[in-house]
Amino acid sequence: MAQKPGIPKGTRDFSPVEMAKRNYIFNTIREVYALYGFQQIETPAMENLSTLMGKYGEEGDKLLFKILNSGDFMHGMTADEVASTSTLKLAAKFCEKGLRYDLTVPFARYVVQHREELALPFKRYQIQPVWRADRPQKGRYREFYQCDADVVGSESLLNEVELMQIVDTVFTRFGVRVCIKINNRKILTGIAEMIGQADKIVDITVAIDKLDKIGLDAVNAELAEGGIPAEAIEKLQPIIKLSGSNAEKLQTMKEVLCDSEIGMKGVEETEFILSKLGALAGESMLNNAIELDLTLARGLNYYTGAIFEVKALDVQIGSITGGGRYDNLTGIFGLPGLSGVGISFGADRIFDVLNQLDLYPKGAVSATQLLFVNFGSAEADYCLPLLAKVRAAGIAAEIYPDAVKMKKQMSYANAKQIPFVALVGESEMAEGKVNIKNMTTGEQMLVDADQILDCIQ
Amino acid sequence: MAQKPGIPKGTRDFSPVEMAKRNYIFNTIREVYALYGFQQIETPAMENLSTLMGKYGEEGDKLLFKILNSGDFMHGMTADEVASTSTLKLAAKFCEKGLRYDLTVPFARYVVQHREELALPFKRYQIQPVWRADRPQKGRYREFYQCDADVVGSESLLNEVELMQIVDTVFTRFGVRVCIKINNRKILTGIAEMIGQADKIVDITVAIDKLDKIGLDAVNAELAEGGIPAEAIEKLQPIIKLSGSNAEKLQTMKEVLCDSEIGMKGVEETEFILSKLGALAGESMLNNAIELDLTLARGLNYYTGAIFEVKALDVQIGSITGGGRYDNLTGIFGLPGLSGVGISFGADRIFDVLNQLDLYPKGAVSATQLLFVNFGSAEADYCLPLLAKVRAAGIAAEIYPDAVKMKKQMSYANAKQIPFVALVGESEMAEGKVNIKNMTTGEQMLVDADQILDCIQ
Repeated sequence: MAQKPGIPKGTRDFSPVEMAKRNYIFNTIREVYALYGFQQIETPAMENLSTLMGKYGEEGDKLLFKILNSGDFMHGMTADEVASTSTLKLAAKFCEKGLRYDLTVPFARYVVQHREELALPFKRYQIQPVWRADRPQKGRYREFYQCDADVVGSESLLNEVELMQIVDTVFTRFGVRVCIKINNRKILTGIAEMIGQADKIVDITVAIDKLDKIGLDAVNAELAEGGIPAEAIEKLQPIIKLSGSNAEKLQTMKEVLCDSEIGMKGVEETEFILSKLGALAGESMLNNAIELDLTLARGLNYYTGAIFEVKALDVQIGSITGGGRYDNLTGIFGLPGLSGVGISFGADRIFDVLNQLDLYPKGAVSATQLLFVNFGSAEADYCLPLLAKVRAAGIAAEIYPDAVKMKKQMSYANAKQIPFVALVGESEMAEGKVNIKNMTTGEQMLVDADQILDCIQ
Repeated sequence: MAQKPGIPKGTRDFSPVEMAKRNYIFNTIREVYALYGFQQIETPAMENLSTLMGKYGEEGDKLLFKILNSGDFMHGMTADEVASTSTLKLAAKFCEKGLRYDLTVPFARYVVQHREELALPFKRYQIQPVWRADRPQKGRYREFYQCDADVVGSESLLNEVELMQIVDTVFTRFGVRVCIKINNRKILTGIAEMIGQADKIVDITVAIDKLDKIGLDAVNAELAEGGIPAEAIEKLQPIIKLSGSNAEKLQTMKEVLCDSEIGMKGVEETEFILSKLGALAGESMLNNAIELDLTLARGLNYYTGAIFEVKALDVQIGSITGGGRYDNLTGIFGLPGLSGVGISFGADRIFDVLNQLDLYPKGAVSATQLLFVNFGSAEADYCLPLLAKVRAAGIAAEIYPDAVKMKKQMSYANAKQIPFVALVGESEMAEGKVNIKNMTTGEQMLVDADQILDCIQ
């Protein structure tokens, strides 16, 4: 036999059981998004490279999958011209289109392109694959799904509150206990201002972000290496070591940031979000803890207000959901002044969490409920209308298509985890009966043909 | 403002209403596939070009979207080498991957790659986009979804019967009256043999296939132009003009093809499929007519047994579903001996049919049921727990995030076709009431806060 065919590295096939689990995840998220009034859109896999380039930094540009123009992609370039042009520039000449890298840039492009049709605020969700030419490694793929919800065209912090409720509802439905961490970019900016290092905000937050992993001393060492003066590091200590309830943390921050206008704005925004969520929690309408975490930074250059991140409590794994507010989402496409806020569920990690905690509901994976064994053509003729009736009742059922050995048919039932098997031989046909075998208990019941449904339901 | 951004030609954005309609179509097909024991898989958008090339003919190879290799795709080619290499060969050097062109070849690749995990017969369905660098035109796109179901590893004609039942069930659920046409490649081969033109089978069927469009005389003229001798054309007349019931047609074909072994095999297969479907129709378990149509050919070089095609009765549009049996599906990947049979629903055309006949169920497109108008922060605080209760009951609901003018909020409700609006001002708050407005009738009802659900359900 020839060599087994394969698929490009970093990509995956999803087999029936994986698909059933993934559909359970996507459907749960989809239902909750819809419950909150979000509407689904889809955008093309291919975008013009002019839409994608320059939106993800220099590194991101390199990770875009580019699609060779159809037909004469050399369009009359001479060999000399080819030889004297850089690879990157040649790629730009040979390719006009690329595969989408995330769902946010296509969404921004969509909003600008369709702005006349949209009733703002526009609450959209989108569940589609994205592609990145990253080096594949454990848990990192070149094709993976994103599940984003964003509100664009509203600056109200109620949007932040609702997104946290969505997170809470989704993980409650999954049965996964989580901690929802929130922070605010304006607070981080205020902190940098307050210690006189406004231009070092990125270094500072990158270092603080590592507190959990490397500990306080290492964080301080990294800050010093980054050129933050000892005096400023000293001033940072109460913030890095900040602990207590959300209210206590906010109180401390109000004192520390009292001279920073932007910092106080961040505190105020956070206080609003936490108070609304606290009120819902007080009425038992929120199941998971919300924690103000000042070390949370997440793609800092992107977010301008609230920042969120979700951690699973019972599994050691990175962030399983994240998001935040970003002003001027559509400015890059010439439509300034629209603020956006969004979240993104990490489907691949949630898949792993539900696997590890064994949280898939039984019905999510099972499919066919009843298999008619095929003993030959007369028996099959007897079974076909019965099978049609079972299906008309909405129950997934099959007949084994070939009259092969019983053993082969039973192992098919086992492999597909079919819970019931119908056995119809000559005697059952003569009596108008069906023999139903429960594949879990091994029990068999001889029933009238019109009682099949009672038997398997 | 800058120029509006666009998307690559031949691709589409799907806005919320279109998505809702498309989801209704995909979900209906998905549910019926599952009812018949088919299991969903997904394969990567990108396949190795070695998997795709040569599978769709020379023309197909040109229509593959190829993905430029990451990094140094020139891998040290000199200007001379570039100059002396054809565009097609350069493309092959620069690109290792391409976007999938259909779902059948990736499925064959999947079966071979995963053969040790599969319980045969393997009944899979797959609903994913495919990409073709075709010239875009009305109704033809460069990115479109296919919705395929195939059974591989069983030669039983019960599979054909079940696929026709699936077609019948899906269009019954849609409320679309259809005619399901069937034919058999073996009958066509028999006909060509019988008139002594076995090598001309393609020309003959292409010509016969046009009978509906161009009429008998033009078909005969085309056959003559194609080099079919007058005598053979004469022999073809009873077949081209064949009419009557399926039974009558089969009877005629038995007489005409009595000397062709393969032809008689095709007649026998067709008789089997029609008799099983006839028995189900007799028990009112089949709603649409099945018609034996000897002019049906469909991608002849592909199919080896049964051929199917579905036409809508009440809309002028091409085939909306098609399929057939193809032996040796996986032979191209080194695993010979597996026969397959499948169908493919044409989602884009079905979308148009349901639009033209206005057959989308009301619930399929509506989303949010209730909008709380936002009169300010105290009012919003009063509404948030009520909103949470409505959602906890599974009803999609929203609060307008900003306390803007009433008129703007009401036009948002109208734009999203939200049927109920909740109005809560100072007096309602004082009394513990909510004012619910029915947006269709204009009626308003003042109800207790805990009666909202009764009011809108």
